[in-house]
Amino acid sequence: MSDTEPISDDQYRRGLAQLEKMGGGSVQAMLGKTQEISPDLAKITVEFPYGEILSRKGLDLRSRQIATVAALTALGTAPVQLRAHIDMALAVGCSEEEIKEVIIQMAVYAGFPAALNGMAAAQEVFSARERKGV
Amino acid sequence: MSDTEPISDDQYRRGLAQLEKMGGGSVQAMLGKTQEISPDLAKITVEFPYGEILSRKGLDLRSRQIATVAALTALGTAPVQLRAHIDMALAVGCSEEEIKEVIIQMAVYAGFPAALNGMAAAQEVFSARERKGV
Amino acid sequence: MSDTEPISDDQYRRGLAQLEKMGGGSVQAMLGKTQEISPDLAKITVEFPYGEILSRKGLDLRSRQIATVAALTALGTAPVQLRAHIDMALAVGCSEEEIKEVIIQMAVYAGFPAALNGMAAAQEVFSARERKGV
Amino acid sequence: MSDTEPISDDQYRRGLAQLEKMGGGSVQAMLGKTQEISPDLAKITVEFPYGEILSRKGLDLRSRQIATVAALTALGTAPVQLRAHIDMALAVGCSEEEIKEVIIQMAVYAGFPAALNGMAAAQEVFSARERKGV
Amino acid sequence: MSDTEPISDDQYRRGLAQLEKMGGGSVQAMLGKTQEISPDLAKITVEFPYGEILSRKGLDLRSRQIATVAALTALGTAPVQLRAHIDMALAVGCSEEEIKEVIIQMAVYAGFPAALNGMAAAQEVFSARERKGV
Amino acid sequence: MSDTEPISDDQYRRGLAQLEKMGGGSVQAMLGKTQEISPDLAKITVEFPYGEILSRKGLDLRSRQIATVAALTALGTAPVQLRAHIDMALAVGCSEEEIKEVIIQMAVYAGFPAALNGMAAAQEVFSARERKGV
Repeated sequence: MSDTEPISDDQYRRGLAQLEKMGGGSVQAMLGKTQEISPDLAKITVEFPYGEILSRKGLDLRSRQIATVAALTALGTAPVQLRAHIDMALAVGCSEEEIKEVIIQMAVYAGFPAALNGMAAAQEVFSARERKGV
Repeated sequence: MSDTEPISDDQYRRGLAQLEKMGGGSVQAMLGKTQEISPDLAKITVEFPYGEILSRKGLDLRSRQIATVAALTALGTAPVQLRAHIDMALAVGCSEEEIKEVIIQMAVYAGFPAALNGMAAAQEVFSARERKGV
Repeated sequence: MSDTEPISDDQYRRGLAQLEKMGGGSVQAMLGKTQEISPDLAKITVEFPYGEILSRKGLDLRSRQIATVAALTALGTAPVQLRAHIDMALAVGCSEEEIKEVIIQMAVYAGFPAALNGMAAAQEVFSARERKGV
Repeated sequence: MSDTEPISDDQYRRGLAQLEKMGGGSVQAMLGKTQEISPDLAKITVEFPYGEILSRKGLDLRSRQIATVAALTALGTAPVQLRAHIDMALAVGCSEEEIKEVIIQMAVYAGFPAALNGMAAAQEVFSARERKGV
Repeated sequence: MSDTEPISDDQYRRGLAQLEKMGGGSVQAMLGKTQEISPDLAKITVEFPYGEILSRKGLDLRSRQIATVAALTALGTAPVQLRAHIDMALAVGCSEEEIKEVIIQMAVYAGFPAALNGMAAAQEVFSARERKGV
Repeated sequence: MSDTEPISDDQYRRGLAQLEKMGGGSVQAMLGKTQEISPDLAKITVEFPYGEILSRKGLDLRSRQIATVAALTALGTAPVQLRAHIDMALAVGCSEEEIKEVIIQMAVYAGFPAALNGMAAAQEVFSARERKGV
């Protein structure tokens, strides 16, 4: 990956547009720290997940966010990213109720601790939005 | 959990109805083995996931199956159950295309091996259905 | 799951009784946050794990807590729940020594980082109990 | 680790004695394959888990096997080792009923797929023992 | 990702070249199945891991394969991919001895079952190469 | 494991020497807390990972640390240990650039959240070293 290659510039622009479309303000905030230590990883994160995968056709954004919230709740290893994606799920049209249902359902597939920790993440996101008046 | 308690009978019936509604033929096939060694676990599996969680309101069944396929692909530890839930996802209205998109998306959140193995599971389910003429 | 169904009321009562029996003060403290954002998940957590599973016959409570402490130490994704279950393990008769042995043993099955983090959780629980004079 | 060091010889002998004590016939069968490709890993597996950890005082062998069966069921990544440890759990005095309870309980902490796959492992072990007339 | 976009063609070509350089015959064999069910995932797997990441400067290919073999052994959820990467590790200059050391080391960080299963994967790869006279 | 057994004294000394050689100041700091609650686990951690495994021949220390950083980034459950091993990777000759490449590569095998969290760990280590003027 070299900055002189014009190739991925399109992918990067597409990624930024996708992020915007998905209300990814909180992701950009998150990438700020990554940007400092590894501009390459920050760039790749815009290009590949957003510019390449989440911008694909064939599945609506609401379903995509449900899939991500489910997976990150089940894995239980990425609370920062889970909070960012709960935020984006709300931005693309999921209701708080729906997000809570996805998280409760993870008790079945990944156990109660995963669901309880996922719900704690949701609570932080919902409270932060309320404070901001979103 | 005792068979003399009339309490969970309703939950069990609700679970069976939910399974039926979700096209869970393949799950019942799967529970057959469990039934033999642990009728209790088989019963609880009908009662809790199906009778209690998947039958909840607040999220449509299509979204519920997307969440489960995403989570099981990401975890990578339950290929039998992943195949069963891909089958049920098709039964409740997901297209093959949508399921493939969910699985591709997991490359972002759980890595390429998880996505490749999830896709192999999808292939087995799609092929089996084709052979059966579903 | 609806509040008008008398069905799970028994399960809920059985769950609360089980929690009490297991010294689950710290779990109720933990469920407080869940209660706020998702009374349903809090209710299900009392009903299913406590009212349905941990209250089953066929295995003594001490062994049940050893199993849970082992599993949560090995998974390494649920430090809050691990601390709660170490606390409950002590409440149902495990000694601090036994809990430490379970955690050390997890170095074999889940690696040294899992064991070291499990031991850090144990230390927090033991210290908190000492401060409270338990 | 060198074969000329007399140091770990004691640990190795202690490990073999511990394996014997735990009915580890099936583990030795399993280590056969490891022995061929990496005699060092086979030797270390006898020395450290068996000679160093499982032979420690402070926790009875039955509880140790409950902890291991719980952890391996929850992790879901080691079916071969799970079967071996279910076999050893029976050898050190756990009943089939108790093992099934440990596995059912894992539905709470690691999800239903983990419990269902753990139960399938138990079924294989119980059946194999029945065939052998153990 | 659309086939009409000339953009990722370069990335795809770079990916194929990288695969060739890494002796990835076995990966192409593996991608054959993926190609059938999801040409898109097969294409992305060439483009992103090989064309974008593994072809980056800043780390030699031998170290990259050590990192991958370590990670897949530790995760324990991708035996097919682990075998492919052990094969590629040999192709880029790792010795069998070095690969075995990486796997043994994972006993420390992910537990003995992970190391034993990783070693079984190595054995399959080494045996297959011997049969082929590589 | 008893303090009266002269056997593991050699292993312990070898472990301490290995720790020293690997610049493990930060690990000893980490083991301080373990030392308090479980001197046995602290002792075993010096003896087995350092005295037995990391001191083995057959793989250079730089490669060993690359393997560990890769595995802990991929697992995502041990941030404290990941930071300690990033520190030790630098101490045995890895460059910051190489460590960042290993972490970026984990996006492929364990997903972007794992890589992003691994990079955050690297940032903390690099910043701490800069503050200390290392």
